[in-house]
Amino acid sequence: MEVQTTAKKIVKASEGKLSEVYFVACGGSLVDMYVSDYFIKAESKKLTSGWYTANEFVHVPPARLGKTSVVILCSHSGSTPETVEAAKVAHKAGAQTVGLTYNKKAALLPESDYSFVYEWGNEREVRNNPMAIMLDLTVSIVHELEGYGHYDVFRKGMDIIDTVVGNAEDEVLPRTKEFAERYKDEPMFYVLASGASYGHAYGFAICSLMEMQWLDAAPIHSGEFFHGPFEVTDKDTPFIMAMGLGRTRDLDERALKFLGKYAEKVEVVDAKELGLDLIDDSVSEYFNPILFYSVLSKYRFALSQVHDHDLDARRYMGKVEY
Amino acid sequence: MEVQTTAKKIVKASEGKLSEVYFVACGGSLVDMYVSDYFIKAESKKLTSGWYTANEFVHVPPARLGKTSVVILCSHSGSTPETVEAAKVAHKAGAQTVGLTYNKKAALLPESDYSFVYEWGNEREVRNNPMAIMLDLTVSIVHELEGYGHYDVFRKGMDIIDTVVGNAEDEVLPRTKEFAERYKDEPMFYVLASGASYGHAYGFAICSLMEMQWLDAAPIHSGEFFHGPFEVTDKDTPFIMAMGLGRTRDLDERALKFLGKYAEKVEVVDAKELGLDLIDDSVSEYFNPILFYSVLSKYRFALSQVHDHDLDARRYMGKVEY
Repeated sequence: MEVQTTAKKIVKASEGKLSEVYFVACGGSLVDMYVSDYFIKAESKKLTSGWYTANEFVHVPPARLGKTSVVILCSHSGSTPETVEAAKVAHKAGAQTVGLTYNKKAALLPESDYSFVYEWGNEREVRNNPMAIMLDLTVSIVHELEGYGHYDVFRKGMDIIDTVVGNAEDEVLPRTKEFAERYKDEPMFYVLASGASYGHAYGFAICSLMEMQWLDAAPIHSGEFFHGPFEVTDKDTPFIMAMGLGRTRDLDERALKFLGKYAEKVEVVDAKELGLDLIDDSVSEYFNPILFYSVLSKYRFALSQVHDHDLDARRYMGKVEY
Repeated sequence: MEVQTTAKKIVKASEGKLSEVYFVACGGSLVDMYVSDYFIKAESKKLTSGWYTANEFVHVPPARLGKTSVVILCSHSGSTPETVEAAKVAHKAGAQTVGLTYNKKAALLPESDYSFVYEWGNEREVRNNPMAIMLDLTVSIVHELEGYGHYDVFRKGMDIIDTVVGNAEDEVLPRTKEFAERYKDEPMFYVLASGASYGHAYGFAICSLMEMQWLDAAPIHSGEFFHGPFEVTDKDTPFIMAMGLGRTRDLDERALKFLGKYAEKVEVVDAKELGLDLIDDSVSEYFNPILFYSVLSKYRFALSQVHDHDLDARRYMGKVEY
């Protein structure tokens, strides 16, 4: 489905009264929604939003969920039971639903008023990944409903994000190998980020390290770092810092300055240095996570290579009952 | 200040048009706000809410922040610069502000339209702790604005929470010593919870373990556990499970069932078994975090004893520049 047309249809079907957008998924798909939820909170005066792991949404749906809500759901396989159930809960409450999946026969699709069956695997076309589709849809909904002042530069950003990410992936490749060599014996990593990027600190921890490599990990918000977490800092603790562009960069810089003094194992992945500043300042922060996902996937791959650990290997997921 | 009177004043000052409540703080104070934010999302049809680490709120204030918003801020010392700055940002946008602190001379107070200088140290009076004050204020605001169907039983819960928590603390004491003895050599813990309690999984990780004991830790939402994190499970990985009462208990039970099969180091802290079911089912989930804070503090203390680690010892906070 075409994103901008869908945005228009959603706003029209609500008779212009759209009031909430809920983002509902599990794990990696939920991670991909973080930036869209963040965008609404930061930019919309008419809409509110919520970001829910699907089973919590099913058990405790938001009180406001109803006819003027839209619920965006994503499941790569399309059959995540909690996400399919959440779509049913949303429908029952009278909300519009948008479903994203890779699977044309997904159980999520019959529960979706609008759907996007995305492509997957071409690392050079991030624009067609669910994260970019959902962000584009969200920004387009806000623009359709109330006007978004930076919509034109946002569109220009979308037009060049594939190129920006491709260049960044090439640039970072040698570094990922050095990273993997240096950190190959580490059992645990902290991942820092802020603003629109925080979702990917969480995502790199739970998906790329815990799920795919069985390594211990924890995300830390750069703004929270100084209010507890930083006391674990020492020369032996590894930190990965996703330095974003935009309004919360100050928070990342402050954390990095501290780490520069008291830590010795710090890997910095800097969106600015990797060329995201080709996108206009007014919107670049919303593209941080798209860049970080792709670039951090290269780090993930390099680490898996030194461990000779297949990133698709699971010991529980899809293998045992739970 | 008296909670219910304050709720009435806030609603009245907004001319009944109150539309958002933002919860803004850092670290442990932010943790204490999680349940209030959760309550609004779960129960209010008229209000929306947001939960912000203060420096992110300062750098990217929500677009909706304005005259019909109330911003609740908390700083134990009363001088956390990011929180004081957030209060200024809120005021500048025309929002009402509520400040909570332990310090009568707090820099936060002149920026607070309403303030609560709470007491601290009497572990048997949790009702006067900031978490309970903020929850009571939030529930009272919702009730004042639109009516909350379970307000009477909520009030009864508040009346007995001190007793419930006191009993639970006594009951759990021997177990905390066994826990500390068993886990004294562990360098890292995962802390699981869901629903209203998730804030305290985060809080136990960042405050009680990372900040106070320099131990590695990570919170996991019980609902997210099966979508990535559970792949780290093995017989050597320690998990602390805060089993709550209420609508998301299913999520905790599912995670616990899995851990029962594949993990061997699992400490269960069960609100039901510890007597929280004395509070009516319709509201007990909102009291989970009040119980968990007090009970988990006993676990924290026992662990610090076996390590001979002073819980007030810091290596960076308040000692170096950052």
